Amino acid sequence: MTITLNDTVKLIKEFDNFLILTHRRPDGDTLGCAGGLSQGLRELGKTAYVLPNPETTPRYMQLVEDYLAPENYIPQCIITVDTATLDLLPENALKYADKITICIDHHSSNTLYAKYTYLDAQGACGELVYDILIALSGSVSAKTAGHLYAALSTDTGCFAYANTTAKVLQTAAHLIEAGAPHREMNKAFFRTRTRSRVKIEGALFSEMEFCFNGTVAIATITRAMIEQSGAVEDDLDDIASLPGSIEGVVVGITIRELTSERDCKISVRSSPSVNSNEICAHFGGGGHAMAAGASVYGTTGEIKERLNLILSEMMIK
Amino acid sequence: MTITLNDTVKLIKEFDNFLILTHRRPDGDTLGCAGGLSQGLRELGKTAYVLPNPETTPRYMQLVEDYLAPENYIPQCIITVDTATLDLLPENALKYADKITICIDHHSSNTLYAKYTYLDAQGACGELVYDILIALSGSVSAKTAGHLYAALSTDTGCFAYANTTAKVLQTAAHLIEAGAPHREMNKAFFRTRTRSRVKIEGALFSEMEFCFNGTVAIATITRAMIEQSGAVEDDLDDIASLPGSIEGVVVGITIRELTSERDCKISVRSSPSVNSNEICAHFGGGGHAMAAGASVYGTTGEIKERLNLILSEMMIK
Repeated sequence: MTITLNDTVKLIKEFDNFLILTHRRPDGDTLGCAGGLSQGLRELGKTAYVLPNPETTPRYMQLVEDYLAPENYIPQCIITVDTATLDLLPENALKYADKITICIDHHSSNTLYAKYTYLDAQGACGELVYDILIALSGSVSAKTAGHLYAALSTDTGCFAYANTTAKVLQTAAHLIEAGAPHREMNKAFFRTRTRSRVKIEGALFSEMEFCFNGTVAIATITRAMIEQSGAVEDDLDDIASLPGSIEGVVVGITIRELTSERDCKISVRSSPSVNSNEICAHFGGGGHAMAAGASVYGTTGEIKERLNLILSEMMIK
Repeated sequence: MTITLNDTVKLIKEFDNFLILTHRRPDGDTLGCAGGLSQGLRELGKTAYVLPNPETTPRYMQLVEDYLAPENYIPQCIITVDTATLDLLPENALKYADKITICIDHHSSNTLYAKYTYLDAQGACGELVYDILIALSGSVSAKTAGHLYAALSTDTGCFAYANTTAKVLQTAAHLIEAGAPHREMNKAFFRTRTRSRVKIEGALFSEMEFCFNGTVAIATITRAMIEQSGAVEDDLDDIASLPGSIEGVVVGITIRELTSERDCKISVRSSPSVNSNEICAHFGGGGHAMAAGASVYGTTGEIKERLNLILSEMMIK
């Protein structure tokens, strides 16, 4: 069932020991929310840990490294953050799948898998955690603020994406006033590119395919491209936003080979006139209306053919 | 002399007809401030125009096109926005040089050339204009808010640059609440690249030179590169921020050929440990501590040699 902010706050007050779960391929949003919530709960005298997520990259490790749960930790209350479905939990979290007390999320595609879900599809997940902590204690520390600033800023592309609202900016302002090191974070997350990142961006743009009169751009990231550029996982952060950044493009799609040439992930970014979630639903994935993703079994060529059919139908409508 | 916000508001109340001047090579900041101030003053029943700036590009023309002053307009009060020195005025504005009543600016290098200067080197210029309009009328219209949002967001690289403060974010939140079309502006200004822009970025990165153990990056933009990429002026917007975006770079410098191979402009972007203003002062230019520029007579090769000497001295200190 879904619950309100007040219910969530009351519920959290009832427990003393928390374990926070993040989603697979964790980004700044899920990790920042988990770190911020842990730090905030600890400052209230509670015990709080984040389940180690094996896919956490060095870029975002700072957000959770102080809260990693010990092996035999037994929590009273398990909370997921920014996680729309159980499928999105990493393997080591699956044993908790039927024991999740609270889910704090902002995906309209949330399957309400938790006992209680605090869902606001209009807000950023970091905002929801901030509101909870403010309701619990009236303020956040500089450390908590830093984690939540990372969540908010990475989720909104440093306040440039369409999900940026006045409230997101106000919350970010409060976090800066509370001591979030926004200059260092902005520099590290948004204004620093490794030479490998520059190389792989160059390769991605030079191979990009345009169709439907330039309204659709499809980028492919093969394992070979990653190897040649020397890119590591952090170098690929938010790379899915690039195809949609070309003038005239309404739907930007990135197809990335993962462990093999038939193990791919597609990421879709779209303008409001096209529903990304709907495109990804054809592949069993989902997300938001303007940003969604799916895991797909098939080669990049096969996936492009399927996308072409799906898009033909959607564009004709 | 410098004056306070209250003084500025009182002074503006005394006049009925205004002409607003912008700086050479006008950016979103100076044009957004000029458009926002004009629109706000008009809504107060005053007559306000912006002096046409011959270097205004299509990208930012929307910010001032409704306020362009007719040929024989005779104003009572002339205001400059975001303009640190008289040298920065375009040629058609020079006839007003000794008649400027108010300067609204945020450059610490401001030479106080106006009769009255409202200067806040800690703030964004759009913030200063917003504060003035709020003090004058208590609110801003959606149209005014849009112009000022353009000023704030372009000045701060969509809130990613080090000049972003809690107050900038709060002001941006107020502007969005007042109806600024922030989604459309963010998409147009920060999330859209023309194919020419992508090409010239690729060329710039592949030719970039690194020195001082990778702490200094120098990019050159020659007229040939511009021609080959098909880039127009708008495609080069904020391109000076790119060298400083490479990991490990403390000082990012862009040397751009303008009308001939000896007519160059340098743009310097630096981390707090190095003063960009000081570097540019060697060439007779200036700006902010972390972002400055200068016009230089010399080839890109000659300029690199001079920069090398200047930087050697600064780095040794």
